[in-house]
Amino acid sequence: MLPDALVASLIPAAAVIGILFAIFLWKRVSAVQMTGGRLISSQNGREYLLEEEQRGGEEEVVSRAADIQKSISEGASSFLATEYYYLGIFMVIMAAVIFSLLSIVTPEEGRTRDDEVRNGIFSTVAFALGAATSILSGYLGMQIATYANARTAVEARKGIAPAFMCAFRSGAVMGFLLSGFGLLNLFLAISVFAKFYKDDWKGLFEAITGYGLGGSSIALFGRVGGGIYTKAADVGADLVGKVEKDIPEDDPRNPAVIADNVGDNVGDIAGMGADLFGSFAESTCAALVISAVSSLGRDHDYSGMMFPLLVSATGIIVCLLTTFIATDLKPAKVISEIEHTLKMQLIISTLLMTPVALGVAMTALPAEFTLSVPSSSTDKAFDEKTVKNWYMFVCIATGLWGGLLVGLQTEYFTSNRYKPVQDVADACRTGAATDIIFGLALGYKSCIIPTIVIGVAIYVGNTLAGMFGIACCALGMLSTLATGLAIDAYGPISDNAGGIAEMAGMGEDIRERTDALDAAGNTTAAIGKGFAIGSAALVSLALFGAYVTRAKIDMIHSSILDPRVFSGLLLGAMLPYWFSAMTMKSVGKAALAMVHEVRRQFNTIAGIMEGTTRPDYKRCVAISTQAAISEMIAPGALVMFTPVVVGALFGTQCLAGVLAGALVSGVQLAVSMSNTGGAWDNAKKYIEAGATEHARDLGGKGSDCHKAAVIGDTVGDPLKDTSGPSLNILIKLMAVESLVFAPFFYNCAHGQGLIFKWFGLVQ
Amino acid sequence: MLPDALVASLIPAAAVIGILFAIFLWKRVSAVQMTGGRLISSQNGREYLLEEEQRGGEEEVVSRAADIQKSISEGASSFLATEYYYLGIFMVIMAAVIFSLLSIVTPEEGRTRDDEVRNGIFSTVAFALGAATSILSGYLGMQIATYANARTAVEARKGIAPAFMCAFRSGAVMGFLLSGFGLLNLFLAISVFAKFYKDDWKGLFEAITGYGLGGSSIALFGRVGGGIYTKAADVGADLVGKVEKDIPEDDPRNPAVIADNVGDNVGDIAGMGADLFGSFAESTCAALVISAVSSLGRDHDYSGMMFPLLVSATGIIVCLLTTFIATDLKPAKVISEIEHTLKMQLIISTLLMTPVALGVAMTALPAEFTLSVPSSSTDKAFDEKTVKNWYMFVCIATGLWGGLLVGLQTEYFTSNRYKPVQDVADACRTGAATDIIFGLALGYKSCIIPTIVIGVAIYVGNTLAGMFGIACCALGMLSTLATGLAIDAYGPISDNAGGIAEMAGMGEDIRERTDALDAAGNTTAAIGKGFAIGSAALVSLALFGAYVTRAKIDMIHSSILDPRVFSGLLLGAMLPYWFSAMTMKSVGKAALAMVHEVRRQFNTIAGIMEGTTRPDYKRCVAISTQAAISEMIAPGALVMFTPVVVGALFGTQCLAGVLAGALVSGVQLAVSMSNTGGAWDNAKKYIEAGATEHARDLGGKGSDCHKAAVIGDTVGDPLKDTSGPSLNILIKLMAVESLVFAPFFYNCAHGQGLIFKWFGLVQ
Repeated sequence: MLPDALVASLIPAAAVIGILFAIFLWKRVSAVQMTGGRLISSQNGREYLLEEEQRGGEEEVVSRAADIQKSISEGASSFLATEYYYLGIFMVIMAAVIFSLLSIVTPEEGRTRDDEVRNGIFSTVAFALGAATSILSGYLGMQIATYANARTAVEARKGIAPAFMCAFRSGAVMGFLLSGFGLLNLFLAISVFAKFYKDDWKGLFEAITGYGLGGSSIALFGRVGGGIYTKAADVGADLVGKVEKDIPEDDPRNPAVIADNVGDNVGDIAGMGADLFGSFAESTCAALVISAVSSLGRDHDYSGMMFPLLVSATGIIVCLLTTFIATDLKPAKVISEIEHTLKMQLIISTLLMTPVALGVAMTALPAEFTLSVPSSSTDKAFDEKTVKNWYMFVCIATGLWGGLLVGLQTEYFTSNRYKPVQDVADACRTGAATDIIFGLALGYKSCIIPTIVIGVAIYVGNTLAGMFGIACCALGMLSTLATGLAIDAYGPISDNAGGIAEMAGMGEDIRERTDALDAAGNTTAAIGKGFAIGSAALVSLALFGAYVTRAKIDMIHSSILDPRVFSGLLLGAMLPYWFSAMTMKSVGKAALAMVHEVRRQFNTIAGIMEGTTRPDYKRCVAISTQAAISEMIAPGALVMFTPVVVGALFGTQCLAGVLAGALVSGVQLAVSMSNTGGAWDNAKKYIEAGATEHARDLGGKGSDCHKAAVIGDTVGDPLKDTSGPSLNILIKLMAVESLVFAPFFYNCAHGQGLIFKWFGLVQ
Repeated sequence: MLPDALVASLIPAAAVIGILFAIFLWKRVSAVQMTGGRLISSQNGREYLLEEEQRGGEEEVVSRAADIQKSISEGASSFLATEYYYLGIFMVIMAAVIFSLLSIVTPEEGRTRDDEVRNGIFSTVAFALGAATSILSGYLGMQIATYANARTAVEARKGIAPAFMCAFRSGAVMGFLLSGFGLLNLFLAISVFAKFYKDDWKGLFEAITGYGLGGSSIALFGRVGGGIYTKAADVGADLVGKVEKDIPEDDPRNPAVIADNVGDNVGDIAGMGADLFGSFAESTCAALVISAVSSLGRDHDYSGMMFPLLVSATGIIVCLLTTFIATDLKPAKVISEIEHTLKMQLIISTLLMTPVALGVAMTALPAEFTLSVPSSSTDKAFDEKTVKNWYMFVCIATGLWGGLLVGLQTEYFTSNRYKPVQDVADACRTGAATDIIFGLALGYKSCIIPTIVIGVAIYVGNTLAGMFGIACCALGMLSTLATGLAIDAYGPISDNAGGIAEMAGMGEDIRERTDALDAAGNTTAAIGKGFAIGSAALVSLALFGAYVTRAKIDMIHSSILDPRVFSGLLLGAMLPYWFSAMTMKSVGKAALAMVHEVRRQFNTIAGIMEGTTRPDYKRCVAISTQAAISEMIAPGALVMFTPVVVGALFGTQCLAGVLAGALVSGVQLAVSMSNTGGAWDNAKKYIEAGATEHARDLGGKGSDCHKAAVIGDTVGDPLKDTSGPSLNILIKLMAVESLVFAPFFYNCAHGQGLIFKWFGLVQ
């Protein structure tokens, strides 16, 4: 068994190492200078003048790139500032709600009014801390990405290897910063709270769940707002630029082009970062709150309790070692190596993490401990279940390898090196309609494996260690978070680099290199989404388990034969559809507004098409910002209010049904949306790149096939980048919110629901 | 209380009256003569020569119409013959499976080997009878529809009123034949089985559930096969005809045009008929098998037990009276009245049925009876629940009015007289991509109300009378089945009439009339789909309840906290996606095959485009037939095998989860698919018809908006006519199959699943 002092220093040490490593990587990225004058790269100390000297005006190109980067960075900062202003207001209100609803709860036997108020205060503090960490993560991620995009473009002039290195390192900065800060803040919060809670670990970790709620609330608005922003700009830019004016993507003549690039940063970077931070925070909180009532908590076994944090801490170190492989030992040097190098990152980190997880489980946990699981008999609420420490290793490993499996199958369904996407591209021969029919079918089909993987993980986790086992499956899946985030953030950075290369007029060959970086990024983005939804499903089930315990629902009252549970199940299954209807329509509406503005500029500002006048980029940025902020309110409200309304009015059983229904239906919708969208995007890229005989046969850019593929890609944009990924947060957030407010719901007519009480239907 | 003899004569009498009424209506339709020579109509004894004499060659037109009708009828008959040949083989195999699996069950205490064999034999006989009735219904429906389509076109030359009358009466023939035969055969089966079962009503009604399984099995293949047939032909015809060759819909120069019209009959008529017959059979069986173990069954209260059949019997009479309103009292005379007349049919039948249901409940049921409901305590499996007869009226009324509400909201979301579809049409201004984004959002949004309605019905039904209450909600929703089917079948008949008018060269004004009939039909078809899915959800929940009882699963073992149940829930929620992936892709593949054939004919047969050579219609019919038959096997197998595999290998609890998951997720997918497809279709029609200022502003036929709308319509075809409606059957069929095989599953390791037994995980 690990000594307590070692545990208490290992966790923050790993977090700090992660943060320092991120700073180190950032320094290496910043060695690429963007200031005017001669462009110097410290990369291997070489200067790359050969290629450069054949081109005229390199200074001009670089300063143009710096200029564009500045516009993007300003746009992103201004959006985040506006968004965070509104989120600030939201946080204040939400904090007040959490504090008051939890403090007014009538104390149960054995608890005092002070206990309830203390729970209210600390839950609120944890909420604020989680929200602040999430905001910080998103903000830093955005800063890094906008800092790195122009540098990647500039490096692309030297070749694939330095450009890849620059983009990948920047992604890794985000990955390590986020996992480091997430872990550190959580650990500090636990340590500080412990001073006040003393021996009441159950109360301590119940209050800590506020951290997960805070993280996920911000993630919700980040994902939805960022998603609407990025797709409104993207769809709007494409509809006028590509379809009507026939100018290429990222052409500086398109007024929406800056907004489009800003969108990549605020949606795909800040949104994704906040989302995965939320998953990490929630799965850790779920594991903690469940183990607090196990023998680990009752016996005050510090290292056992800290097991979830130890897994994440060692994960940071494993990812750090893995990163060196891509940046120093075996970096991608040619185009064909990029996707492989990124995929190897995932596989290697999973391989390395496996023995590490075994070590952690064997040393941090006692050989045997007992967990409380819902009882199958009615005379008592809980049975004691004996769990061996290696069971927990099995859970972690199941999540870890399950995540890899989901990631690899996502790659199979969305990469254009495999048959599914090639079939979709083929269907473009008969027009956009068949493209869309085949793409939808592909997305539906891609649900099969992830569902089976998650189902097996649930069965294994629950059978070995109840809901604690499921939380550990989720932790296992997220233990390689830093690597996952790194390859995920790599995508939008490369995408932006391509945009900057095009806008700065860097020439066709440079653009080809950034396109190759971007194509690999598209696939890794899909893999990232696979991880995100897989872990979200497990996390929310673990939170659901904790909620059920806290809301005092036993096995009988969570039966699907109970009409409240079943009605809840049905309504819950509907929520992802309602939510998606809102987000899809928001993107559609915002895109229409963007189209009108872009058209207006083309029609009224003379010289745009000739390239003699600069379009008014700022107005497009403002339109996207405005649309994103106003459109994120309704779907956000749906997710935030549903648990409170259902729990208070219709009771805890109905809410249990709603959570389970939203989970099982939302997973399918999210997976199918992400993969359908990814497949359409890569089918289009397949036709554009024309890398094989078959692809060239489809006609290439500008052909009828390509036009059909562009329509599919446009439909897929809101599916894969707005509605799909937001669903992850819907299912997690409703679960963690229910867990935090469980005492309040139980307080409303003993969890039977106020509506039924008013109608006198409650005994 | 009603005397037994009266009940025993009332039910068959109502069924026979329904059948006679159908024959009477058919006679009136057949008064429209299609033979050469002067066209005589007995309609009000008037001959309509005024209009006719202004046109030349009426004989030629009529004989051309007769000719086309013959081709369609032959194509439909040949497809159904092929389909039924394979279904015959399937039925024989399935019958063998049912008999053997049920007969080998080890008899439990109190039962003998003979009991099990008897259950095997009678379940098999009931299965065969249900399947045969379903086949008969589909075949007769198809015959009527192909008989009526040309007559409707011919009548359209006289005006809207006679054409509407002809189409509506033909639809009603189908509605009454189907409900009459369905009820009669079920009643006869019960009466005959009773001779063998004597006092063992529980055994009797358990065996009778085979009737529901038979009906639904055929419906599955009918829906899937017919759906693939019709959409392969439709999509294929449109992709070459409308998009490539720019010839109008139903142009006789299009080689796929006959196949397209055949498809309307085998898909929308035969498939829909089989589907709703299945719902009727299953909901009645569910109610019967549940009430067999109530005090009604134990006390051998004949009129009480026959309550479900009495509701259906009186429903036939109510629908009969309602029909007179549309055919004689207040028929639609002008275009604007059509949709209203059809909608009034639904509203009036619902209004009339309400007091009738009250009367039936008060006279057929005892003032109080007791039901067995799953117990909340562990010492016993069941509690006795006292139910008053008026509770059952409330259940019937909830279903009845809930169905109307779902129908009306479906109309709101799919009719182009309301804002949602107009918004979708508006989105076509910016191209096909926004059309599709808005259409998908509309479909997702349209899930809200139906889900709430079904959720409330479930809560009310279950609270008042357990699963019997839910079965009665379903029966209430289906009590106006004859009317629902009539207005539903009206749609494809009008659609076909339009096709025939176009092909026979009847002129623009006639085509406008049939288009108006068809537009109303599109909306009523969507309403019909709303009913179908609403009733399917309730039916399958009732069947689920009966399954749980028969598989001896108590409240604790159906808890969502149980890992088997939850994993099952997740896997079940995935099944509708898997199934839809298969059916969507099948339509896509079959449509591609059709496209190649149509292109081949245009390229190799000289004179098609000039109209001098007849295209080879038969080859297209053969391609659709071939594709439908071969493509229906895989999705059919998925649905048929899943319950058996899961139940036997993973146990009854896991199967319970699968059924519930498929239900809650399938409902959403089915509703959103049907409504999205309906909305795209009517958005296209809105632009084509140009009835308002706003619609004309979109540009009308041939404009860019219209082209975008055509793409949306094509994508919607498989969604609304293949995948969406087939999902109803998926959820119902898996439930009824589980119910029939429940004793066998329980026999496999006491319902714990053979897999777990082999691995030694079962105690």
